Amino acid sequence: MGGDHGPSVVVPAALRHLEARPEHRLILVGQEEALRAYLPAGSLPEQLTIHHASQVVGMDELPSIALRKKKDSSMRVALNLVKEGKADACVSAGNTGALMATARFVLKMLANVDRPAIITALPCAGGSRTWMLDLGANVDCSAEHLLQFAVMGSELVTVLDGIERPTVGLLNIGQEEIKGNEQVKLADRLLRNSSLNYLGYVEGDDIYLNPDVDIVVTDGFVGNVALKTTEGVAKMIRGYMKEGFTRNLFTRVAGLCALPVLKGLSRRIDPRRYNGASLLGLRKVVVKSHGGADVLAYTHAIDIAAKAVFADVSARIEDRVAQQLQQRASA
Amino acid sequence: MGGDHGPSVVVPAALRHLEARPEHRLILVGQEEALRAYLPAGSLPEQLTIHHASQVVGMDELPSIALRKKKDSSMRVALNLVKEGKADACVSAGNTGALMATARFVLKMLANVDRPAIITALPCAGGSRTWMLDLGANVDCSAEHLLQFAVMGSELVTVLDGIERPTVGLLNIGQEEIKGNEQVKLADRLLRNSSLNYLGYVEGDDIYLNPDVDIVVTDGFVGNVALKTTEGVAKMIRGYMKEGFTRNLFTRVAGLCALPVLKGLSRRIDPRRYNGASLLGLRKVVVKSHGGADVLAYTHAIDIAAKAVFADVSARIEDRVAQQLQQRASA
Repeated sequence: MGGDHGPSVVVPAALRHLEARPEHRLILVGQEEALRAYLPAGSLPEQLTIHHASQVVGMDELPSIALRKKKDSSMRVALNLVKEGKADACVSAGNTGALMATARFVLKMLANVDRPAIITALPCAGGSRTWMLDLGANVDCSAEHLLQFAVMGSELVTVLDGIERPTVGLLNIGQEEIKGNEQVKLADRLLRNSSLNYLGYVEGDDIYLNPDVDIVVTDGFVGNVALKTTEGVAKMIRGYMKEGFTRNLFTRVAGLCALPVLKGLSRRIDPRRYNGASLLGLRKVVVKSHGGADVLAYTHAIDIAAKAVFADVSARIEDRVAQQLQQRASA
Repeated sequence: MGGDHGPSVVVPAALRHLEARPEHRLILVGQEEALRAYLPAGSLPEQLTIHHASQVVGMDELPSIALRKKKDSSMRVALNLVKEGKADACVSAGNTGALMATARFVLKMLANVDRPAIITALPCAGGSRTWMLDLGANVDCSAEHLLQFAVMGSELVTVLDGIERPTVGLLNIGQEEIKGNEQVKLADRLLRNSSLNYLGYVEGDDIYLNPDVDIVVTDGFVGNVALKTTEGVAKMIRGYMKEGFTRNLFTRVAGLCALPVLKGLSRRIDPRRYNGASLLGLRKVVVKSHGGADVLAYTHAIDIAAKAVFADVSARIEDRVAQQLQQRASA
């Protein structure tokens, strides 16, 4: 029910996912009538079921209120289904804070993981992609948390991108003497002593320009600002380009000529192809779609959830975190 | 002598500045022979003098080493000239950390300012521009520091953009319950009680999309990451566009048709037009040019320094900080 478009996006995305993967099963959770309005008339595809939930968590609702007062919200009920083993993963385009708080409360954290983190893939030069976490689940992070993020992120990227030992960079500033704050310096030491494929410090531009970095680790405040800044820059450039190409007849013709190339560019950095941020550190798979996602984007988020489930990513993360702790204890 | 291109950029930029503003006086500080190599043969323009300095601070040199061992570097000597009143401002494309440390040591801080900050203008949607500080002078900032940054930034923007009461936004994440860390929440309270034109929290995308925000305030770690991230996104997009338009004969023709529009776009967001970051909080004007600046970009940095000098920006900042303290004491 969440996101800017609610069932008008989620229902068609579910149908589209099942067309491609008819062996999957999806449960639509929400107000039955609202959901049915977007389903084809007649009988449902057998892989699709509806699970009614009477409430909806508002996009601006406080997480604490959602947690206490919305016990029959689509979000809460979907997470309950996952907890009860009736579903393997939850995908939502709803309120991020509420989803994180409710998922943590309902599904619980993995053993030895202190904090959940949000991770997504981003486009990078050279046709590669870069993953970044945390994107806003945690505002203040200790070095230990940053290390855990790196461990969890590495496991997810191995699963989703098939990279055996993905490289990890720690986001920092400048090349000067006093590099970063205390947590970053300490996290650097922890990462150097870990079994991860750690590259060292990276800077903001490396996210988009350095194809050697698979995962960029940072705290949720910085990661969120970097992500939103990216959105802002890209939208500003697109806006100015649109304005330029629609200025007069001549520029419109130029725009038509350039259209195939511009479309190729958009495809390449299309945020829809990167939609689906994973909430790591929970016992089960939870994927957050961008609130403004369209059908294509939302389908992508469902795909990510399915891939994570089949690879048993939560169990893998738990094992890896335990290994990491053992390695340190014996070091 | 600093920057990626040294005198080959600085000297022509100085000459170009003097062409436009023949009433100004410039002193080129550095290795005389290296500087002369880029000057036209024969006599110097009378507004231009050379001041020899034997050493150069390396771009990767530690600020502490530059400070202790490079007492005859172009950077140090230029700052000494400012201190002695022989120059009104220093412009450098050199090592940022060394420039900041040396400027602080030589020129000293303004009364009641605890920390210097680096500020620059950035392009924004709707043809406006947004200023952001701090960009990396401080990794950990208290709420009090953030307030001082806002006061200093407001004064500079009033002077450089002629905006009577520029609006200030405090960079934060998400719209959820737990907005930001403790410093940000406390800074929000300080800003609300100040005489500044404070708008409240802004997010990363507001930097480039919200024309209502004149100044975005944040700590140096976050500001630096946001700035570098911007650089990365813009370069990635430019790279993919170039690749797209040069793929084959057809796309090359399309590129030619689109060229005027693409050039218009580049002009609009051209980083050269935004070159010149001011080091605020010092008793005198110091402007840092991007290390990779070309002649046009470096000229822009000189222009900013001149404008700041004529407006007596340091004295204005000192007054404003004092007013702010008084206002709080009487509140």
